Amino acid sequence: MSEQALAYLKENRTILLEKLNEFLSIPSVSTDSDRQQDIHNAAGFLVTYLTDIGFENIEKKETAGHPLVYAEYNGAGPDAPTVLLYGHYDVQPADPLELWDSDPFEPEVRKGRLFARGSSDDKGQVFMHLAVFEAYMKTEGKIPLNVKVCIEGEEEIGSENLYEMLNDNKELFKADFAVISDSGMVADNQPTILYGLKGFTGIEINVTGPDHDLHSGIYGGAIRNPIMALNHILSSMKNEEEVVTVAGFYDDVDPLTDEERKLIEAVQGEDFPTATGAPETASEKGYTAKEHTMARPTFEINGIYGGYQGEGTKTIIPSTATAKITCRLVPGQDPEKIQQLLENHIERTAPSGVTVDIKKEKLSAKAYKVEPTNSLIKKAANSYTKAFGKETVYVRMGGSIPVVEWIEEIYNMPIVLLGFGTPEDRLHSPNESFPLNSFDKGMETLVYYWNEVKET
Amino acid sequence: MSEQALAYLKENRTILLEKLNEFLSIPSVSTDSDRQQDIHNAAGFLVTYLTDIGFENIEKKETAGHPLVYAEYNGAGPDAPTVLLYGHYDVQPADPLELWDSDPFEPEVRKGRLFARGSSDDKGQVFMHLAVFEAYMKTEGKIPLNVKVCIEGEEEIGSENLYEMLNDNKELFKADFAVISDSGMVADNQPTILYGLKGFTGIEINVTGPDHDLHSGIYGGAIRNPIMALNHILSSMKNEEEVVTVAGFYDDVDPLTDEERKLIEAVQGEDFPTATGAPETASEKGYTAKEHTMARPTFEINGIYGGYQGEGTKTIIPSTATAKITCRLVPGQDPEKIQQLLENHIERTAPSGVTVDIKKEKLSAKAYKVEPTNSLIKKAANSYTKAFGKETVYVRMGGSIPVVEWIEEIYNMPIVLLGFGTPEDRLHSPNESFPLNSFDKGMETLVYYWNEVKET
Repeated sequence: MSEQALAYLKENRTILLEKLNEFLSIPSVSTDSDRQQDIHNAAGFLVTYLTDIGFENIEKKETAGHPLVYAEYNGAGPDAPTVLLYGHYDVQPADPLELWDSDPFEPEVRKGRLFARGSSDDKGQVFMHLAVFEAYMKTEGKIPLNVKVCIEGEEEIGSENLYEMLNDNKELFKADFAVISDSGMVADNQPTILYGLKGFTGIEINVTGPDHDLHSGIYGGAIRNPIMALNHILSSMKNEEEVVTVAGFYDDVDPLTDEERKLIEAVQGEDFPTATGAPETASEKGYTAKEHTMARPTFEINGIYGGYQGEGTKTIIPSTATAKITCRLVPGQDPEKIQQLLENHIERTAPSGVTVDIKKEKLSAKAYKVEPTNSLIKKAANSYTKAFGKETVYVRMGGSIPVVEWIEEIYNMPIVLLGFGTPEDRLHSPNESFPLNSFDKGMETLVYYWNEVKET
Repeated sequence: MSEQALAYLKENRTILLEKLNEFLSIPSVSTDSDRQQDIHNAAGFLVTYLTDIGFENIEKKETAGHPLVYAEYNGAGPDAPTVLLYGHYDVQPADPLELWDSDPFEPEVRKGRLFARGSSDDKGQVFMHLAVFEAYMKTEGKIPLNVKVCIEGEEEIGSENLYEMLNDNKELFKADFAVISDSGMVADNQPTILYGLKGFTGIEINVTGPDHDLHSGIYGGAIRNPIMALNHILSSMKNEEEVVTVAGFYDDVDPLTDEERKLIEAVQGEDFPTATGAPETASEKGYTAKEHTMARPTFEINGIYGGYQGEGTKTIIPSTATAKITCRLVPGQDPEKIQQLLENHIERTAPSGVTVDIKKEKLSAKAYKVEPTNSLIKKAANSYTKAFGKETVYVRMGGSIPVVEWIEEIYNMPIVLLGFGTPEDRLHSPNESFPLNSFDKGMETLVYYWNEVKET
């Protein structure tokens, strides 16, 4: 039933890769306000492609932020199931540019990998879905099931307007189940089903001392240094054993069961120092690095700045210092409650002589977990194994996909996380890439999967 | 004897201020490698001015860095004393530019103050000396004593090549005493003799974890965050009572005598919160803010940066984090020893999972202190009082002037610190300014002083 589609994908591989490169060449950086036009061009690319494939009711749905691309395929008829396909066409900033070996927006294949910002997260995986739909349409004239496409442009800035969009258009996005390909496999060519995702929240701390930078010789000894004040606050939030010391942070965290620990131990994870270049791993006291990354909450300072950062020395007491913090949450933890605990801790530990402003990150999401018994999950695992020729493993991961929580909350439909990335993809980093092996076998997986679930 | 010179300064005030503005308009920022030409233009301005006044052996002495302007006046004859006048024509960077109310390099007078980078530190005060020499030459045809001028272009980057210059040209710079106007008065219109200066040293810490920025969802929990590691190191170096907790830091510090505490208490200092905009003062446990700023060593983080500092959120574990630290030292403390103590502390406290690189600041200087009994000091105080109509006070200050230590070490000559700045000058900050009251009465002071010391 799916041989023709598979053959089509093989025969047209070069053309499809060229088309993907065209998509990746658009610098659709959602966090950068100078990229508005590129954002619209990326959405436009999808509209054109969906039109060519033969989708209906295609729409660039405007939001308060970046547009969302919606489209339908109803050719499988009223008795066939309908899948809601979610993805995003926006990408992370590419900086620091000097660390890229090739231009982030001029895709280049090296050693079997396609290097470009968005090649893995998530343009590459979105494109694979559209290519598979194209293959079915061009060969069999139909796709095995009905499809609703929902591809947003704000995932990397917290899907700011997606919840409202999904909530205000319940009929439009209604489907029998959802499929999301915005995640990865635990190792190259290792079929992986994600059955748990972490939640997410964040805050920004701004510490202000004097209202202007001061000469350290004249005022040193009289005025609190805002950078040091920020250091005292931050260092009191997580200790050197990687334990978060914010009161109440772990209160709602379920303890790891022995079964889960065995499951995690069984996953052949990557070697963290080799993959990251760090001298050694560092994880929460009492937990392995794999356990901490997959199933324990985390606290990270994503950025810090204050005072003089230029060439040479500038002997000042700076006026302000700022830190950006995000946490990854596990089932049981409520993002708003965690934000409040962080705020309480900061206000309690802020020293005299400075004022502290806290900006709560709008983006937040609860963690997600589903038992890996659902037939839709099982069929996904089978398709995976058939395409990659390896048993599928089931894992929880540290990444956060707010839309997963929202789809569950609003539609209460099963969600299948079919990700084809690998640990070497360098998501959010210089030299992001995606293996062509995942590109080929991932599309093969999707061809099998649509065929398997068409009678769900 | 000095009436004519004083009259000349009054009559030509407008012309002199225009000439000063021309000097201040040259953005001679020594720390900025793009400003080479401006540095040379500022030195060129001085060469021209000294030539017009009638100095001899004028020379732009090239160094490994920025040139030093040397000139001589020998017209007072072999029996008259010779003064070595030191100053600097380079300035601090002007950033952040958006906080200036007028262009830092387009001087503007507001409320009796001349606003421009360098108006107080140190171009304005250097100019006053030249104007006074001009006044004497144009009216009496001679200056009361012989002069050697030494105006460098690297003070704000640690006078990197000055020591070598002074040490390699002992005969050239030899004089009976030295005068330096690169400091301030404790209050506007309050004649002040500095009898003590702090020393200075610094280091830069760079913490590296992974060799590229990581996705916090995938690696959070496995890899040490370099920003948090840096926070733990820095927060262990000074506590919230403003006590430096680096082992040995205070070992060589002489205790403050009751006499000195009384002397400091007697000085009518500024109100720190009002002058700085900070909510309140914060100083070393057991010491007042005045005592800490004038007579106790300090430890400041001048700048910090790492990870994502742009718009929005970027959920990464950054690869590196950096902090710039400088300390102000008191008599007894050795800069190299302090650098070593800082390095030892950092290496001892650095957590696992990161590597730490330390860059030792080349600039360093011992503290300076002189008993205020020397007749050259007394005569300066008299001239000060005569011009400003107020008793002169004697203070120690937190600023560092490496050249003071070097002149003492190499030439062992008396050094008179004749500073005319005020606490409101905002040195090293946006909106640096210099009061026209100091400009007028400062030049008057110098006219009296040269006249008083001509028979030293």
